[in-house]
Amino acid sequence: MPTKGQETRNHILKESRKLFTLQGFGNTSINEIIAATGVKKGNLYYHFPSKEELGLAVLTDTRDEFFTILESSFTGDTPVAKIINSCNFIMAMMQQTNFVGGCLFGNTALEMTDSNPGFGTIIQEVFSHWIVRIEEELRLAAQSGMLQNQLPPHTLATAIVATLEGGIMLSRVFRTRHELEACILSIRTLINLQE
Amino acid sequence: MPTKGQETRNHILKESRKLFTLQGFGNTSINEIIAATGVKKGNLYYHFPSKEELGLAVLTDTRDEFFTILESSFTGDTPVAKIINSCNFIMAMMQQTNFVGGCLFGNTALEMTDSNPGFGTIIQEVFSHWIVRIEEELRLAAQSGMLQNQLPPHTLATAIVATLEGGIMLSRVFRTRHELEACILSIRTLINLQE
Repeated sequence: MPTKGQETRNHILKESRKLFTLQGFGNTSINEIIAATGVKKGNLYYHFPSKEELGLAVLTDTRDEFFTILESSFTGDTPVAKIINSCNFIMAMMQQTNFVGGCLFGNTALEMTDSNPGFGTIIQEVFSHWIVRIEEELRLAAQSGMLQNQLPPHTLATAIVATLEGGIMLSRVFRTRHELEACILSIRTLINLQE
Repeated sequence: MPTKGQETRNHILKESRKLFTLQGFGNTSINEIIAATGVKKGNLYYHFPSKEELGLAVLTDTRDEFFTILESSFTGDTPVAKIINSCNFIMAMMQQTNFVGGCLFGNTALEMTDSNPGFGTIIQEVFSHWIVRIEEELRLAAQSGMLQNQLPPHTLATAIVATLEGGIMLSRVFRTRHELEACILSIRTLINLQE
């Protein structure tokens, strides 16, 4: 069972994640975090001595959770089915919030990569892991003759992750599911599943 | 010839664009803008009464410039060549800054879309225009039998813009050209140009 301190820490992490995802890191003040969590300032600083350390902890926590969720999203009988189901799972996740907020990693990548190397390292880990995970399935698909696209699996996997992140961004901008849906349809044709 | 006032306004717009692109809107203070432009505070507020109005003017100015540059990037003899040359042009633009900063529209989309409707409207205009422009070329390609991908042109055009934006994001995160390159290679296979 988590201690009271761990519970408070987790509560701060979850509420801060929501604020950072919705508003960005730079636009979120410590006072907003205090208001959202109901935690006293001294207690907040006890757990996270600076806003930057809180930001790093939120990214690390979200990364770990994403890796678990990602792994569970590769369901299906074939490598190609696993990739498409994983894409559909991401669509379902994004629809839960109606695309408001979008992807914390993508947001932070664009907001903080150049200005904060610590944040940049975690974002690189997330995208590297995601690309390599899809690449593994593409290699299996190629070995079993299910993949006709001649691009190297790493190239194709990189493009698939980019297309998903770009689709999440566009769906957030237009507030409809159509953009991410278009991206998943195009990923299907990339891996040779013509409708 | 621009008046002195117009020159000052343009100077503020260009310097603010650099800062917003590099650091994000929320992370850039009015004092940093004053330091970067060398313009006195009173003069800055004379041209732009609030940071938000400055942000909107920077986005509008960058949008107009992008539309001109985009149009000039569709070079080549066939619709498919035009799309690929336009993608390659965007790669060349991003390489000029070594992917530092990335795409102001993408950055602002992720930072400000949910919290600022005015910013959101301009970002929607940019992406709508870009998608429709590629869609036009895809329709011409389909009419001349050069496009075998069965997806509707609007769907494919949406995925192409998403893939480019995602590629710019990943190249910014990893600080190499490989990610955006992978995306352009995948766009080539999407529109049936196998290497």
